[in-house]
Amino acid sequence: MGEDKKISMAVIRRLPRYFRYLSDLMQLDIKRISSKELSERMHITASQIRQDLNCFGGFGQQGYGYNVEYLYNEISKILGTDKRFTCIIVGAGNMGNALANYENFRRRGFDIIAIFDVDEKKIGTKINGIEVYSNDKLPEFTANNKVDIAILTVPNKKVIDVAKQITSLGIKAIWNFSPTDLRLGDDVVVENVHLSDSLMVLGYRLREKGY
Amino acid sequence: MGEDKKISMAVIRRLPRYFRYLSDLMQLDIKRISSKELSERMHITASQIRQDLNCFGGFGQQGYGYNVEYLYNEISKILGTDKRFTCIIVGAGNMGNALANYENFRRRGFDIIAIFDVDEKKIGTKINGIEVYSNDKLPEFTANNKVDIAILTVPNKKVIDVAKQITSLGIKAIWNFSPTDLRLGDDVVVENVHLSDSLMVLGYRLREKGY
Repeated sequence: MGEDKKISMAVIRRLPRYFRYLSDLMQLDIKRISSKELSERMHITASQIRQDLNCFGGFGQQGYGYNVEYLYNEISKILGTDKRFTCIIVGAGNMGNALANYENFRRRGFDIIAIFDVDEKKIGTKINGIEVYSNDKLPEFTANNKVDIAILTVPNKKVIDVAKQITSLGIKAIWNFSPTDLRLGDDVVVENVHLSDSLMVLGYRLREKGY
Repeated sequence: MGEDKKISMAVIRRLPRYFRYLSDLMQLDIKRISSKELSERMHITASQIRQDLNCFGGFGQQGYGYNVEYLYNEISKILGTDKRFTCIIVGAGNMGNALANYENFRRRGFDIIAIFDVDEKKIGTKINGIEVYSNDKLPEFTANNKVDIAILTVPNKKVIDVAKQITSLGIKAIWNFSPTDLRLGDDVVVENVHLSDSLMVLGYRLREKGY
């Protein structure tokens, strides 16, 4: 199930959230849950949940609800949580440092294997045990190591040039933290992180409450 | 329009993205756009766009498309981009530093007015011109200054205690960067940032491409 038909990106984008909630439920030893309960926990409408989970065969049973472990396993399979990816960080500034120290990535299958920067003072140091290399070493490093994902935390004015260099070296996925939306052709996968989007939603919700 | 009926959170969460794209189009002096073109730029289906924009009266006309400036202004009104919010950051680590230096927040109406930490070495210093105070000063500071939003970048094991303290001081909105999903009752607005969700989607898309 699920593998047979194409699942829309809108559903895919909600899967990590289901994954987190179901994994919490498993830790609490909860075996089954109704879409109503899941809806209240996740702040997603029950009908949206039913629609989403039906996409990959997670049919709930009337009066029984969803089997937590089954759903968790199905979502894990779709998300490929058993797969491992190698990542590099380009830009050893504050954001690069924060991400290099983020405990969750490795647990989710993402190994940061090197960090790159142009600052002589940073080159040769280690962040959370990961070595910082000169940007000049990028071609050599990518020739000798399989790199799945480049995490870009360079200044905004540099990001387009760095992204072009990265893709010319054959890296096929970019996680971009600069405010510039990168578009790099169909063979490169890009996720642009726009932190201010989430802040704007917070501002909206705060005003809506009348505070 | 729009103000009359409740707009679903799913639509609200997409608005900052429309806002960014429409603001790009305005800068390119593009006056109108079809849902098909907008769909291709934004990687959202044309039918989803029509559905979303209809929520606040952005009816496109057959053969004409959407009026960019009108839509931009309507979305700005709904998001309240003319409003300003005061923010504090609690936790002057790497993530706190990165956020204090993030150029986009002020432009979007979010002013960071103080940073708090427990580390004696950081207290009294400034980050991007913003003073770092001791956590002990939180009650005094919030008594003397209107604080709309607390941005929490403290270690995961501290976040629940800090969130409780923050809300006991009357702050009504929390932007949480720790992996723990905070739930603090109906009168506190929380946005939990889960960076690994976006990374998991990137991993999914990479595998889907067969790389």
